[in-house]
Amino acid sequence: MLNYPEFSFDVKARDKNSKARVGSLKTPHGTIQTPNYIFCGTKATVKNVSPCQLKEAKTDIILSNTYHLMLQPTADLIEKMGGLHKFMNWSGPMLTDSGGFQVFSLGEGTMANEIKGKNNKGYDNRNLVSISEEGCVFKSYVDGKKINLTPEYSMEIQRKLGADLLMQFDECTPYHVDKSYTARSMEMSIRWGDRCLAEFKRHDNGAQSVYGIVQGGVYSDLRKFSAQYTADRPFFGTAIGGCLGGSDGEMYDVAASTVEYIHPDRPIHFLGIGRIKDVFTFVRLGIDTFDCVIPTRLARHGTAFVKGQAKETINLKNARYREDETPLDESIGIPASANFSKAYIHHLLKANELLATQILAQHNIATMNMLMREVRAAIATSSLDALEKEWLGSLK
Amino acid sequence: MLNYPEFSFDVKARDKNSKARVGSLKTPHGTIQTPNYIFCGTKATVKNVSPCQLKEAKTDIILSNTYHLMLQPTADLIEKMGGLHKFMNWSGPMLTDSGGFQVFSLGEGTMANEIKGKNNKGYDNRNLVSISEEGCVFKSYVDGKKINLTPEYSMEIQRKLGADLLMQFDECTPYHVDKSYTARSMEMSIRWGDRCLAEFKRHDNGAQSVYGIVQGGVYSDLRKFSAQYTADRPFFGTAIGGCLGGSDGEMYDVAASTVEYIHPDRPIHFLGIGRIKDVFTFVRLGIDTFDCVIPTRLARHGTAFVKGQAKETINLKNARYREDETPLDESIGIPASANFSKAYIHHLLKANELLATQILAQHNIATMNMLMREVRAAIATSSLDALEKEWLGSLK
Repeated sequence: MLNYPEFSFDVKARDKNSKARVGSLKTPHGTIQTPNYIFCGTKATVKNVSPCQLKEAKTDIILSNTYHLMLQPTADLIEKMGGLHKFMNWSGPMLTDSGGFQVFSLGEGTMANEIKGKNNKGYDNRNLVSISEEGCVFKSYVDGKKINLTPEYSMEIQRKLGADLLMQFDECTPYHVDKSYTARSMEMSIRWGDRCLAEFKRHDNGAQSVYGIVQGGVYSDLRKFSAQYTADRPFFGTAIGGCLGGSDGEMYDVAASTVEYIHPDRPIHFLGIGRIKDVFTFVRLGIDTFDCVIPTRLARHGTAFVKGQAKETINLKNARYREDETPLDESIGIPASANFSKAYIHHLLKANELLATQILAQHNIATMNMLMREVRAAIATSSLDALEKEWLGSLK
Repeated sequence: MLNYPEFSFDVKARDKNSKARVGSLKTPHGTIQTPNYIFCGTKATVKNVSPCQLKEAKTDIILSNTYHLMLQPTADLIEKMGGLHKFMNWSGPMLTDSGGFQVFSLGEGTMANEIKGKNNKGYDNRNLVSISEEGCVFKSYVDGKKINLTPEYSMEIQRKLGADLLMQFDECTPYHVDKSYTARSMEMSIRWGDRCLAEFKRHDNGAQSVYGIVQGGVYSDLRKFSAQYTADRPFFGTAIGGCLGGSDGEMYDVAASTVEYIHPDRPIHFLGIGRIKDVFTFVRLGIDTFDCVIPTRLARHGTAFVKGQAKETINLKNARYREDETPLDESIGIPASANFSKAYIHHLLKANELLATQILAQHNIATMNMLMREVRAAIATSSLDALEKEWLGSLK
């Protein structure tokens, strides 16, 4: 039986008005307070943000991607270099995903596009060769080689990478597939979950823990079934994956009906979700951790998260900032947020200067970390509504 | 008469074996020790290196480019934002060039290519419309507008930018033009120098100082004439500009015959030169400051300056670094140089991750700053030869 002696999750405080909770998640690389935000270091780096800058921005935890790392530089190399923590010089807690999301998003019109709100262009996974009970076969974007990614192989790679929190391998179904496909896929993900646990157990040395993933698309009964499965198995945590709907309302309804059946004593991670409004919406359902590429992706497009904006962000490319002498947010207390005028960042963007993305990425990360600190404090005092108004104003 | 009360240059120590000297250069934004390296912040940013990172790398002084800034975001905007120091958040000494070098390098086959060692493709300045006694007309790469850059306008722009050390406007002639063109051009640069001084004097408030520039191509008699002119006029410092030759030997000979006639009590800047071997060669001729884009440009190509390498640099893209667990140089004492293995940087470069250029740029800057500190110490103890051997080995 897996009991994860080096890991624990304890709820420290609960909101009086919702299921929101403050928790303490202990890993071999440190203990983080939840709710918290897990920043994406896709290819063993948070894009253009150094580990020092992550710490300066008060980052607690990051993640890295199995799919990208298995192709370049390979899990074997990272293991040889002492594991992902040492390789990328990050000493805090770390999560790796299973590789499934990226593999099943290889074509246009799949999960990745839907989550990003793009149009459904059909289930055309051009580099995804096959999906079967065994696993899936896809072509490497690095050298074109066919790779057979199975639940066992995903666990092996994640073991070699050495993160603290691992994800089971699952099929991530798109929104537009029908219920019958979604059901069969979810059932296969359950069998894959069991294979992941078995493989994990064979090599378990206490340094890592595994999350089960709830699939089931937009279908409440499938989500319930999948959630009950994860609760029934010795996973350390539970993640909500896949597409939850085409609108914020649908996503909320599916998530709400899902969390009811998730193991109440385990940490709950929401995969790939993380705008400011999402954080406020889903911490109220009891979500403990979020991850999303949006803080660094927005930075590369010249966009900054700003507290007190109904729209969450401002775009520094906009001509209105050409002569704006104010900094992004002095209250955050880091140079990126306090020492540069919007006019300067506007200039850097116009001049295609990389320092703009460095400044904006660190600012966005620091802003999300500030949000999470304030959310934790607000849960403890049951004042999430007031905090949400501070962050997003009256328009939601 | 210009006397630059806020500026001074004092020689503190001299090498017993060469003309090398340690000096103290005082500006309104601080005093730097020389010889020193001036890092290029072309468009009001050292590429992907923040001011904090520059300071961490022990940077004393940077420069920015009149040509780029006059086009975007414009000198007027920077003046309105409180000047270049405030705009880019750099509080130390700063230099601006005159814009001439870039304007006269607009076509293929001109100065810029020659200095970079590319082939001579003919004097084809496609965006350079005309050069006349009045100044030069060129087309803006931002909006295609014709701009008339004169000595007076260059000084006006540099006054608005607000750097400490300004450069006179000069024509930068390519290597392959004949002596007669070079002579006429050098004589015009002299008249432009006088116009710069007159324009500077009209607005002088003590906050800035001007360098005269020695031109004259590879012709010793022209260089001598030009150097004597700068010594005869109330410039604060002297810069050596233009092409000094097609080989290291020719460049050395021309520089050696030039410095003899440069005002001995003024700081001498070598424009656009700055590999490690150049520093050792030219400090021995009495050069006090260098500038070159090479530390950050090499970084973008995956290349690191390394002490103790005859070839000066190593390229981290090379497969030999795939499993190299050693850092770039722990002795430098900054995270960029000490905390990441060469294997990790190799991976970042393979994955096209921007963090690679951030790490390498900061490392290269820190390395050149370490070089300059060691060079100053070696001059004071007349041990440059031993230091050069330490840095470049027996092969030079």
